[in-house]
Amino acid sequence: MKTSPNKSIERLSMYRRLLRESENEGTENVYSHDLADAAGCTAAQVRRDLMLVGCSGNPKTGYQVKGLINCICNLLDTPEGDSVALVGFGNLGKALLPFFAKHHKKLVITATFDSNPKKIGEISNGCECYSMESLKKVISEKNIKIAILTVPAEVAQEVAEQLIEANIQGILNFVPIPLQLKNNIIVENMHVEIALEKVAYLTRAANTITD
Amino acid sequence: MKTSPNKSIERLSMYRRLLRESENEGTENVYSHDLADAAGCTAAQVRRDLMLVGCSGNPKTGYQVKGLINCICNLLDTPEGDSVALVGFGNLGKALLPFFAKHHKKLVITATFDSNPKKIGEISNGCECYSMESLKKVISEKNIKIAILTVPAEVAQEVAEQLIEANIQGILNFVPIPLQLKNNIIVENMHVEIALEKVAYLTRAANTITD
Repeated sequence: MKTSPNKSIERLSMYRRLLRESENEGTENVYSHDLADAAGCTAAQVRRDLMLVGCSGNPKTGYQVKGLINCICNLLDTPEGDSVALVGFGNLGKALLPFFAKHHKKLVITATFDSNPKKIGEISNGCECYSMESLKKVISEKNIKIAILTVPAEVAQEVAEQLIEANIQGILNFVPIPLQLKNNIIVENMHVEIALEKVAYLTRAANTITD
Repeated sequence: MKTSPNKSIERLSMYRRLLRESENEGTENVYSHDLADAAGCTAAQVRRDLMLVGCSGNPKTGYQVKGLINCICNLLDTPEGDSVALVGFGNLGKALLPFFAKHHKKLVITATFDSNPKKIGEISNGCECYSMESLKKVISEKNIKIAILTVPAEVAQEVAEQLIEANIQGILNFVPIPLQLKNNIIVENMHVEIALEKVAYLTRAANTITD
């Protein structure tokens, strides 16, 4: 299997969301330019991305919404879904849990971890909070390969290393520090603070140019 | 003022975080390669980025930590700071509020908004929750130019348009749909669901290649 380019994967995930909305509204067919308008890219890009999932449209009727969703699901999901660990059960972790413990069908948080003894044993959204000491055991038992990291910055690198030792292979990192990990580990950063600082800077810069 | 490239702004924000940690640990000087190692980029890139903020190091002693932090602050912050609106006061909004209402000195959430009447008037982290009807008035009174958007997907486009009408110029968008806005509006997307789907896919793809 050839790894599709990262940006295509992001767009396919976005198309699927948009297609599911269209399906809910009763739409049966879409054209590449409809999807391109909604996703903010070009129709040619949509067609290239959809070729990755083995779907080609009909020039007259476009793509079948239901068929297209299935094709994207076949690429992005596994039939049985993936278990996810949420590491750091503070405010942000608690905000993310309901969505990925209940609403997302294929990426399901099945264990949360925290270093605060008061939180251990707490069950939230059907999910137990475990101690950091039991990380390796629980991750192995539940066959978890992916983790969401929402711990304080001071301990993030150390916890990330523990995750790798526990055989975690992909991390969604909310901690605003760059993790220093082996190249074969997939890390996707969600740096909220950095993103907001960038928005603030660019907003000001745009004003200065307009002035 | 010339707009610096987006990626440099992200890196400068990251360097500042790392430099503040070094300062707290009592470090007075750093070399570009130290910063590059910590930030996961090259020393040449660090030097180019730091030239943007008008800082050049000494080949023997490197950069002065304190001076460098000040230079980056001069570019990224305004002396008086920026007010930020948090629109959508659900779980995610509540998780983001404490950080930007109290800990961040220059980007301060000064108003939250929600459509749920029960939340209106609630004061959390020193910040009042206002109704969507008072959006324009409060944003104008508080001279807010930046918003964090954490509303449900169904209403995101409509709320984003209301924000633009209220003269918001930059949006940090947590809603996993692409906003269709005029080109002069700065939008930075934080699509958690899409990012986690990408981590899951890439983790699986890496395994398939290794097998």
